[in-house]
Amino acid sequence: MGHTLAEKILQGHTDQEITGAGEIVQCRVSIVLANDITAPLAIKSFKAMGAKQVFDRDKVALVCDHFTPNKDIDSAEQVKVVREFAEAMGITHYYECGEVGVEHALLPEKGIVGPGDVVVGADSHTCTYGGLGAFATGMGSTDIGAAMALGETWFKVPPTIRVNISGKPGRFVGGKDYILNLIGRIGVAGALYKALEFSGEAVDDLTVEGRMTMANMAIEAGGKAGLFPVDAKTLAYAAAAGRTGDVAMTPDADAVYERVIEIDVTGMAPQVACPHLPDNVKPVDETSGLRIHQSVIGSCTNGRIEDMREAAAILKGRKVDSKVRCIVLPATPTIWKQCMKEGLMEIFMDAGCIVGPPTCGPCLGGHMGILAGGERTVATTNRNFKGRMGSLDSEVFLSNPWVAAASAVAGEIINPAEL
Amino acid sequence: MGHTLAEKILQGHTDQEITGAGEIVQCRVSIVLANDITAPLAIKSFKAMGAKQVFDRDKVALVCDHFTPNKDIDSAEQVKVVREFAEAMGITHYYECGEVGVEHALLPEKGIVGPGDVVVGADSHTCTYGGLGAFATGMGSTDIGAAMALGETWFKVPPTIRVNISGKPGRFVGGKDYILNLIGRIGVAGALYKALEFSGEAVDDLTVEGRMTMANMAIEAGGKAGLFPVDAKTLAYAAAAGRTGDVAMTPDADAVYERVIEIDVTGMAPQVACPHLPDNVKPVDETSGLRIHQSVIGSCTNGRIEDMREAAAILKGRKVDSKVRCIVLPATPTIWKQCMKEGLMEIFMDAGCIVGPPTCGPCLGGHMGILAGGERTVATTNRNFKGRMGSLDSEVFLSNPWVAAASAVAGEIINPAEL
Repeated sequence: MGHTLAEKILQGHTDQEITGAGEIVQCRVSIVLANDITAPLAIKSFKAMGAKQVFDRDKVALVCDHFTPNKDIDSAEQVKVVREFAEAMGITHYYECGEVGVEHALLPEKGIVGPGDVVVGADSHTCTYGGLGAFATGMGSTDIGAAMALGETWFKVPPTIRVNISGKPGRFVGGKDYILNLIGRIGVAGALYKALEFSGEAVDDLTVEGRMTMANMAIEAGGKAGLFPVDAKTLAYAAAAGRTGDVAMTPDADAVYERVIEIDVTGMAPQVACPHLPDNVKPVDETSGLRIHQSVIGSCTNGRIEDMREAAAILKGRKVDSKVRCIVLPATPTIWKQCMKEGLMEIFMDAGCIVGPPTCGPCLGGHMGILAGGERTVATTNRNFKGRMGSLDSEVFLSNPWVAAASAVAGEIINPAEL
Repeated sequence: MGHTLAEKILQGHTDQEITGAGEIVQCRVSIVLANDITAPLAIKSFKAMGAKQVFDRDKVALVCDHFTPNKDIDSAEQVKVVREFAEAMGITHYYECGEVGVEHALLPEKGIVGPGDVVVGADSHTCTYGGLGAFATGMGSTDIGAAMALGETWFKVPPTIRVNISGKPGRFVGGKDYILNLIGRIGVAGALYKALEFSGEAVDDLTVEGRMTMANMAIEAGGKAGLFPVDAKTLAYAAAAGRTGDVAMTPDADAVYERVIEIDVTGMAPQVACPHLPDNVKPVDETSGLRIHQSVIGSCTNGRIEDMREAAAILKGRKVDSKVRCIVLPATPTIWKQCMKEGLMEIFMDAGCIVGPPTCGPCLGGHMGILAGGERTVATTNRNFKGRMGSLDSEVFLSNPWVAAASAVAGEIINPAEL
């Protein structure tokens, strides 16, 4: 019997023979990840289990990206715990200070994660790396503490839902819209403990960045992983990030899928997830006219250079509505510098945006753009749970960067084509 | 009897005849200022006293600069209060979103405050505008609520300490060092409810930015105001900010001073205020070698373009120490854009700095760079009280931008000349 992408990748990291979904396998992990919120908990578990040293100092990544630059004393103390652990263990991939970026943008960019890897992270959006053909998944901090010590962990091999995406999208429609559309179809539990495996013409046409945007939100349908084939684009991306030895990967022709979903993106409108769940998805025109107070362009979902370019394409020569806070957060220092190089920063500033340093910031209600009661935001982020970005009486609408930028200009949710 | 600068300016705003210090005068105010922390309190007082409308919608400035982009729900709710009040009153100078900058850099830049003005603000560093020859002073929010309603307030005419600053400074020494040196001499209560009036060759040689840096810290010696003559430089600055009708102003030759202090800056080393008071001032070399975790370059004291240029001159071609968070916060969007235009942003980013949006941020322990216990920072800010920037067990050393930048590179406090 052939293997799905999930099975193929896991098979490369275990000595057990995988024959199908549902099996429990013990896997070697390529990278174990935690951030400034979760690492302190993982470190506590690590120590509680009597561990003295991480399994491999080059294979633990600690990224202080959530509440940094430190928003308060508590967050500063958390970072201090992570820093001291990283120093004591001699961790290679410790990121703080001016080198820090949003973890799920930073690790791919630096080649720390890539095709064929098994990555476990104490962060639910670890699934982002599936865009590169890595089996990557979020876990609780206790499991991550154990993985930091052991270098391995167990998985139940997930059943796979194959998602074929065909057609050519229109203007202002991309990976974010595909994944929102899918989540709208199957619901926030539609892929619970399953792998989503993407294929088809529209997927092939996406950049690696666009694929990471999609994989990033697999968890919003409950997915254990969101996986893309490794093609020439992936290999070029990985090579540019300094990786060697990566190889192309496709699922076997006779792989067994639990279900196949067909989506044709021809004629698809930009999609918006309305409050208060990522599966409350509507075409943007059905939400048009709602006044907004804020627009957030950034995060591990849409904070990469492609996203910045899309936002800038809308904002160029335009002004953000005077009552809207348009917060732009390039996800890594490299992306930040690239924005400057390409003149995007100038566009953002001339339009009246607020440009912040790389941080998860407002996405999780952390800092740098929290909402008061009665406020509404459009955001390129990944979750719109009640109170996610601030007050329980605020609203978050998820969209792609074109829609977020256009809405910032209009002062209300709008289809960029209507601007 | 002649008038000091303080007396001259106040005389221009009252119908009473001022004959000397100690008199109580009722003055018309040019601008009433509050920010996102203090405005909600001032608005509460304003309403409690039954006021229905501000005295002049063009003469109240509300600047949401302290905890923005909103760091949490509480700060978002505070901004909302200010925003709704500004809308209801039709306030002209309301700043939020992408237009906001640090109030004491923003108001001079926009020509909202300038020579000869009397400015009261619900912020202790309102005294900054003394650098432009304005009598500007901080007040409690209740007084500010009243001033917003009435357009006037009372002052006891302060006695004046004249500070003559002579000589030519060496490299890496400027206004910040002069004012730190003065505070070190007279102590944090050395000018309590007095005006500091600056004059002399070294003051004439300062830019208007450098004078604002000095005036900004008059309050750190307890001063009611810190005042500079209005000369050709001041008038050029005010004109560039769009103001008309400003005129030169010097104290009368026979003005009466409580005391005259002479400072010769020839051979003065860069000055550093050590924990935990601004008057614990030492030449930088006496603090050299102390490891730092953070360096903050910004604030109403040293966040202007001149300060950015000084920091960049040090950082160009160098790298921030890997264990130091060097946080650069240009004080207004205009300064931010100017940094980009002049290539300073590139220098900061290449050096490994974190560049944030205009905000008071860490200076007051707000956000964007808060210290954990045991951490030490150099900062171009104005206060180093115990716990000012975070943990009660952290330390803040105040310096000029050259020292802050050089220390970021060295990883320890250092004289830039030694870098």
